[in-house]
Amino acid sequence: MSKLKNDTFIRALLREPTPYTPVWLMRQAGRYLPEYNQTRARAGNFLALCKNPDLATEVTLQPLARYALDAAIVFSDILTIPDAMGLGLYFAEGEGPRFERPLREEWEIRDLTAPDPATHLRYVLDTVSQVRRSLAGSVPLIGFSGSPFTLACYMIEGRGSSDFATVKKMLYERPDLLHRILEINTQAVIAYLNAQIEAGAQAVMLFDTWGGMLSQAAYHEFSLAYLRRIIAGLTRAREGLRVPSIVFTKGGGGWLESIAATGCDAVGLDWTVDIGAARARVGMRVALQGNLDPAILLSSPQVVQREAAAILASYGKGSGHVFNLGHGISQHTPPENVAALIETVRTTSVAYH
Amino acid sequence: MSKLKNDTFIRALLREPTPYTPVWLMRQAGRYLPEYNQTRARAGNFLALCKNPDLATEVTLQPLARYALDAAIVFSDILTIPDAMGLGLYFAEGEGPRFERPLREEWEIRDLTAPDPATHLRYVLDTVSQVRRSLAGSVPLIGFSGSPFTLACYMIEGRGSSDFATVKKMLYERPDLLHRILEINTQAVIAYLNAQIEAGAQAVMLFDTWGGMLSQAAYHEFSLAYLRRIIAGLTRAREGLRVPSIVFTKGGGGWLESIAATGCDAVGLDWTVDIGAARARVGMRVALQGNLDPAILLSSPQVVQREAAAILASYGKGSGHVFNLGHGISQHTPPENVAALIETVRTTSVAYH
Repeated sequence: MSKLKNDTFIRALLREPTPYTPVWLMRQAGRYLPEYNQTRARAGNFLALCKNPDLATEVTLQPLARYALDAAIVFSDILTIPDAMGLGLYFAEGEGPRFERPLREEWEIRDLTAPDPATHLRYVLDTVSQVRRSLAGSVPLIGFSGSPFTLACYMIEGRGSSDFATVKKMLYERPDLLHRILEINTQAVIAYLNAQIEAGAQAVMLFDTWGGMLSQAAYHEFSLAYLRRIIAGLTRAREGLRVPSIVFTKGGGGWLESIAATGCDAVGLDWTVDIGAARARVGMRVALQGNLDPAILLSSPQVVQREAAAILASYGKGSGHVFNLGHGISQHTPPENVAALIETVRTTSVAYH
Repeated sequence: MSKLKNDTFIRALLREPTPYTPVWLMRQAGRYLPEYNQTRARAGNFLALCKNPDLATEVTLQPLARYALDAAIVFSDILTIPDAMGLGLYFAEGEGPRFERPLREEWEIRDLTAPDPATHLRYVLDTVSQVRRSLAGSVPLIGFSGSPFTLACYMIEGRGSSDFATVKKMLYERPDLLHRILEINTQAVIAYLNAQIEAGAQAVMLFDTWGGMLSQAAYHEFSLAYLRRIIAGLTRAREGLRVPSIVFTKGGGGWLESIAATGCDAVGLDWTVDIGAARARVGMRVALQGNLDPAILLSSPQVVQREAAAILASYGKGSGHVFNLGHGISQHTPPENVAALIETVRTTSVAYH
């Protein structure tokens, strides 16, 4: 495979010197881009787009054609694993993800097995290979997965929720059942991320979207413990290069020390955390990724410039910062505001390196 | 007015010795109680119930008849102030609060004025007086208000939201307009809480439900600064007794030191924070209120006992803890689990005092 021409993203994750602060955006291939909506219309719907490696490759590359981004992320969904387990992922129009067959009975939980990524998640691996070839070493490619706990939330509840009451009921009344699901999910995530690395992913990210709704004790037992096991189970290097890992728990600002201690290379921050304060807490052991409030991208280029500069200043001098949002980009974002963001990070950050 | 027979709640807020840890529950008068649903049906709907002092008094007292709670909280809504400003509060059945006339135009913001509580919020003050008389000194009565920022969220967005994008757009693009709204809201909240104290409230609580969705910098500028001004403007004592204040920012676990520095007597904690760790951070200057995950009340009496005991143990020995939930009680809560909670706190906590 081609050698990396722009390795700022990888180097920042490893806290090695870079000439500027690299930037990419969570959900950078998405509905705020008209070209994405056109490709999605050709695919029929979101899930069909995920499952078509040609079209998924096309949308993965779209934001890179527009903006000087320092990384690509494979276009996929965090819920591909439970779909591959047979739970029947679908998206009701205008609503979030749902499962046709959520886990309701104890025997369904006992029967759960980790899917073989080479067969049931082949489409993701094919997309990874194809994107990697298309990138031709221009920037690195990120693979990703939902965290075991976040996957379990949807597998049990069957859909998004404001409080995931069914999940929490199981957590407190039948922790054995939840641990069984998390155990299988953990095996599945390790196999899935390692298969993505094998197919060409040069860094991996774990999205723990719902860990932040747990109490501190429950977070450590039901989310973090499994994240730690995944990090330990990941392929650490390929093609002679380290494959860095990023852990992002939304709402996890109170637990940065614990997240940094999982063995990951970088911690993702949501926008509620001051990145300078986060660096003072854990910056000696991990890189930090984040953390502009995506709502700021709904304002104007001038505001975007000011707020992006404030985050760069808060992080301060030196390596170890990957600029990103604190959550996925909104579909209502004007593309010119994204241009202002990428340009600001690229030019303003030079002074900090 | 009658002298307080049970002042454990007030004493705990002031970090004075108590024989056990006092307990009350956010939204303790609510839909999980069949007697509440009956009274609400007589009133017609939630808002009619709030605006009828006789019926509001009745539901305020209902949980105290069932459980050995150490405080009553006036039955009302956090959005009474913008309703009194003329924005037209209503509740769509099965959905959250909405305003008929949210703030859309700049002139509407310029024309906004703080309502006189003695006229436009008379019904709340009448309920406070009536509850206070009915309590006859058995336990103290809590008055409350939404925070200026949380009120502004609904006034601008017109309803609840997952991201309050309209509010954030104003915050970043037209901070002058948002500050204008917050200024008026602050005047209104001070007058409203002082009127509740005058009518008989013996402690007051500020609910900052949405401050936690802001960045650290925005939280300090747009929510906390106004909370500090309110605390400074409150009547500090009445009937020769201190009137303690409690500030609760949901999702504010990262900012406990700043919240404690507002001058409030106690800080409310949501369930994501470990209360022992919070005590180590701010327990030398404020009392702490919280923080059981309300989802735990959906499980069983045995689980409730175990988890409540864990919170008491985490806080540890000594005064300064008011037991509560980390958020309002769920309507799906079995009343027998609440009984188990109150009983556990009352008996188990004695060993810590």
